[in-house]
Amino acid sequence: MPQEFAPGSPFALLSPAETAAWYAYMKVHLRLEYELNRQLRADSGLSLADYHVLVALTSAPGGRLRVTDLAIRIGWERSRLSHHLKRMRERGLVVTGVSPEDRRATDVVLSEAGWAALRRAAPDHVEFVRKAFLDALGSGEKAQLADLLERVYDALVEHGSLPRPDDHP
Amino acid sequence: MPQEFAPGSPFALLSPAETAAWYAYMKVHLRLEYELNRQLRADSGLSLADYHVLVALTSAPGGRLRVTDLAIRIGWERSRLSHHLKRMRERGLVVTGVSPEDRRATDVVLSEAGWAALRRAAPDHVEFVRKAFLDALGSGEKAQLADLLERVYDALVEHGSLPRPDDHP
Repeated sequence: MPQEFAPGSPFALLSPAETAAWYAYMKVHLRLEYELNRQLRADSGLSLADYHVLVALTSAPGGRLRVTDLAIRIGWERSRLSHHLKRMRERGLVVTGVSPEDRRATDVVLSEAGWAALRRAAPDHVEFVRKAFLDALGSGEKAQLADLLERVYDALVEHGSLPRPDDHP
Repeated sequence: MPQEFAPGSPFALLSPAETAAWYAYMKVHLRLEYELNRQLRADSGLSLADYHVLVALTSAPGGRLRVTDLAIRIGWERSRLSHHLKRMRERGLVVTGVSPEDRRATDVVLSEAGWAALRRAAPDHVEFVRKAFLDALGSGEKAQLADLLERVYDALVEHGSLPRPDDHP
């Protein structure tokens, strides 16, 4: 970590303990976003954005979700999600349609091709996630990280603007 | 966490300890991306993307970086960064120009307006980061999280495609 932060840098306003935690988190956040996207595109032709949508749908009964609920689960603006779903629909990865329970709402459903793309992508992706993230930690440390981040997640839900979703990957 | 993951979900390929850690991380990653962007736009008119660029520049001497080095620091595709810098330049937040050391390279420099925008944005942003992330953890736990994530970061650098940057926020 740099010894000094310029005035104006948010890090200059944090205590050393806060800086260490936030700085380490942001480094992982930024680089992981890049590397996961690169690995998925190279090994499976899916983007990380495609992958987030597909994985979230696997956690819903029948691979079906209200578009609004999917947006909450993956933390996307509704407009960004609609735009991205259009492109995924054109590639046959998902199907969208009027919700059976509420005709004013739109559901998105994982297609057979979507399931197949995900099954093809998952093994290489999981191998990379192990090498580049999980294997750095012993199993007690994985549990520790999970516990710390679950508490951070609760604070994020409490103080953020999005409702708490149902359990979802 | 859901008790069962559908086949095809990457979580179905992970052990329970791996799933708990990766699942908690991804929940925080996705939601934090949304909430940080929302908070910054609402309180300062900057996007999270603007903010990553500005903060990375504060860590460089004179607020100046080679565009290629900035892309590595924040984990963006060079093309995405060039496109975004054009818009930030139009808003006066940064200046770009030929690098004094290498006339084939482009430097990006934080402008006075960029520093001012960052100084205006930092207090509200830091307050939100404390409430929604850091205050969920005691100071020993912040140190624990920092240690675990620094080790994850090292694995990410070792097994990823981007070079290790110099220290940077």
